[in-house]
Amino acid sequence: MLSKNTLKFIKSLQQKKFRKLEHAFFVEGSKNVTELLQSDYESTHLIYTERYYQDHFALVDNFRGESYLVSQKILESAGAFKTNDSALAVAKTKANDTLEVGSDEWVIALDDVRDPGNLGTIIRIADWYGIRKIILSEESADFYNPKVLQSSMGSFTRAQVWYTSLNDFIQKSVNPVYGAFLNGTTIYQTPFAKGGILLMGNESKGISAGLEPLVTHKVTIPRVGQAESLNVAIATAIFCDNIIRSNS
Amino acid sequence: MLSKNTLKFIKSLQQKKFRKLEHAFFVEGSKNVTELLQSDYESTHLIYTERYYQDHFALVDNFRGESYLVSQKILESAGAFKTNDSALAVAKTKANDTLEVGSDEWVIALDDVRDPGNLGTIIRIADWYGIRKIILSEESADFYNPKVLQSSMGSFTRAQVWYTSLNDFIQKSVNPVYGAFLNGTTIYQTPFAKGGILLMGNESKGISAGLEPLVTHKVTIPRVGQAESLNVAIATAIFCDNIIRSNS
Repeated sequence: MLSKNTLKFIKSLQQKKFRKLEHAFFVEGSKNVTELLQSDYESTHLIYTERYYQDHFALVDNFRGESYLVSQKILESAGAFKTNDSALAVAKTKANDTLEVGSDEWVIALDDVRDPGNLGTIIRIADWYGIRKIILSEESADFYNPKVLQSSMGSFTRAQVWYTSLNDFIQKSVNPVYGAFLNGTTIYQTPFAKGGILLMGNESKGISAGLEPLVTHKVTIPRVGQAESLNVAIATAIFCDNIIRSNS
Repeated sequence: MLSKNTLKFIKSLQQKKFRKLEHAFFVEGSKNVTELLQSDYESTHLIYTERYYQDHFALVDNFRGESYLVSQKILESAGAFKTNDSALAVAKTKANDTLEVGSDEWVIALDDVRDPGNLGTIIRIADWYGIRKIILSEESADFYNPKVLQSSMGSFTRAQVWYTSLNDFIQKSVNPVYGAFLNGTTIYQTPFAKGGILLMGNESKGISAGLEPLVTHKVTIPRVGQAESLNVAIATAIFCDNIIRSNS
């Protein structure tokens, strides 16, 4: 039976400090739980409804951690979703390991992207475009924030993330650095290299002054209309699309 | 002085039925209020803090409706934002007028896009790319929903929207219809016409079966990685970017 202590433990994982302390996180909803159970993450707890079991009995039967068949009401009391008729799972976080990047590989570097929804959406976009490695400044949103994982729609399971100093990372890299600026070369006339760093800046401040000199290619998404800016996830998608087009 | 009745009236506008009944809506935050006051919308109420006044005194002084200088606390009690230290304004909704579309003009048609955040983001993207006209199926999210207006970041003031039957609209149009499908021509080899209809489908169901036969150009955004799908606003941005590139 699902104990009060386990419920309390799961609830605590909504907060970053407890995720750090416990080296654990949770995801909710059928898509994210199913992707998690099929990934290389080590899942420790699975809470699921009869409905989820009917659709995913093999995954549930093969689960090696603690598992609990519960009512929708109890499931919803465990997580943060208003409604959840499928499942919730807890897994161990991965270590913040250094990522090695090849010269023919694209990575996304996020300079202080704070909004969890934006980070999750960027992870989903990167996964669509086959970009696995995401380097984040220390101030960026936490990868294991439930809102990040939720917006990633399961793509978090394929992302490799590394929180580090972007200054150090870029200075040690030999790859070209592409960043979005208002006064750059138009993206339609930018040939993108086989490998590179796509540097995206903070939601309101853009790329920080300290990193700007490290950008080798300042690129502009041409504006035809009058919106003041594009959302950082939208701009990331447009860059990824142009990178893939340029290399295909 | 701001009366309880006025506060109650503003609060009621969070609900669609009262927006319909009163032919009114409200926006919050400096960016949206400022864009609203500079637009052709007829604003009827302005509630603002000393701070907003200092930054926008000319706009406030020239305001012709009811205006109230209030504390941040009272401002926050009027709207839906958790924090708001600037302003809130009420304006009259526009009539759902038929939009005429020229043969060299691009419009976005939304087939049952339900999420207010997605609709607002699409309005912002359309504004960036200079697309003014957005045609929506009757079941789509309400343009005047506070979350739509908020996500549009002021771009709602430049959008022209028309809720109608997309079937009728497309059948009467002579413009080509481009829609996102998994089995279409790659977007990188799609020449986009000078004018057309970009048809985007529902978040989970895509373009409805009834509209699919009306799509003259089935287009695919190539997937390199493993994400199951792209968010509808992200896909809209990629289409708009490719349309502008194709025409520039």
